[in-house]
Amino acid sequence: MNFSSKLLEQAVAEMSLLPGVGKRTALRLVLHLLKQPLAQTEQFTKALLDLRSNIKLCKNCHNISDTEVCDICANPNRVREIVCVVEDIRDVMAIENTSQYRGLYHVLGGKISPMDGIGPSQLNIRSLIEKVKEGEIQEIIFALSSTLEGDTTNFYIFKQLEGVEVKTSTIARGISVGDELEYADEVTLGRSITNRVPFESSLRS
Amino acid sequence: MNFSSKLLEQAVAEMSLLPGVGKRTALRLVLHLLKQPLAQTEQFTKALLDLRSNIKLCKNCHNISDTEVCDICANPNRVREIVCVVEDIRDVMAIENTSQYRGLYHVLGGKISPMDGIGPSQLNIRSLIEKVKEGEIQEIIFALSSTLEGDTTNFYIFKQLEGVEVKTSTIARGISVGDELEYADEVTLGRSITNRVPFESSLRS
Repeated sequence: MNFSSKLLEQAVAEMSLLPGVGKRTALRLVLHLLKQPLAQTEQFTKALLDLRSNIKLCKNCHNISDTEVCDICANPNRVREIVCVVEDIRDVMAIENTSQYRGLYHVLGGKISPMDGIGPSQLNIRSLIEKVKEGEIQEIIFALSSTLEGDTTNFYIFKQLEGVEVKTSTIARGISVGDELEYADEVTLGRSITNRVPFESSLRS
Repeated sequence: MNFSSKLLEQAVAEMSLLPGVGKRTALRLVLHLLKQPLAQTEQFTKALLDLRSNIKLCKNCHNISDTEVCDICANPNRVREIVCVVEDIRDVMAIENTSQYRGLYHVLGGKISPMDGIGPSQLNIRSLIEKVKEGEIQEIIFALSSTLEGDTTNFYIFKQLEGVEVKTSTIARGISVGDELEYADEVTLGRSITNRVPFESSLRS
């Protein structure tokens, strides 16, 4: 592209470093900011810098947090005996949005993936094992995505917990609420039949 | 969405003010920045702030510029007698990319559009008329998009220039190079026949 301005070129180059943002989109976004009042750009950049400089990871569950211990871990009403293991803070948000879970979380920060060079030591697995070995936790819920990497990670943690007295479970896999059976894939449909639940319990939610 | 962090919520809210960026995309972009080194966020925000604070509009053609007069207007090799009237600085870039135009530009900053409350006085039309009346300019090329608003704007400027000795032209409308005739719309195909050009001139570029 033929920019008549170095400042514009620089801003577009930086904007297009964001994932999924190409040069043309970056130009459109930057020109949009130029048309808005200066205050908007100032607030935008301040919010990003504040976040990047001041954000913390909860020392208990590794969730994103403004404080040393996140709101969820600090909440006295949460059930401290159940820990849900998730990959990413977006999964915490997704589960929180359901309002169906009252336990704590543990954010791994990824999945074991030798292809991407990610081994157990790069993830927050050791701190989970130590937390469980302290004895307060009674149940671990694996809520990783059901991919090869997710299953590997689940199994690795499961093996690490051998001999430790703790219940382990995974979230249910099955047909989405509202989906039609004929369009479901065989693995999902198969699992939903194998792991069928008493009819009365489906009436609760 | 259920953010566990005010800082995150703020950053996502600001990011989602960008056009075409929803809450989910904003969250993805912000979390991406969090995973990158602090330096990237600093450079990104600095580039945006620098641009927003220091960018100028060329006092001659209203193109975006780092200096009082833009590179194109300051270039002694450009033909100063021809001015191409465009809506937006993106159109300047698009025409510059063709390397087929050696004249100057005049950026209107929009099109006359009563529906959006944009009248001639909000656009850089007066300065164009004054520039033409000074007498140096011999040809004006209208390069606005061929919509109702574009045609209205062209016609308004054309009327304002009544009595002034200046040649006016518009960019050619026709079938895109490489397009097949059968898929072209009638208006475009009709114009491309009416405004046919001598065969020899099509051999030049």
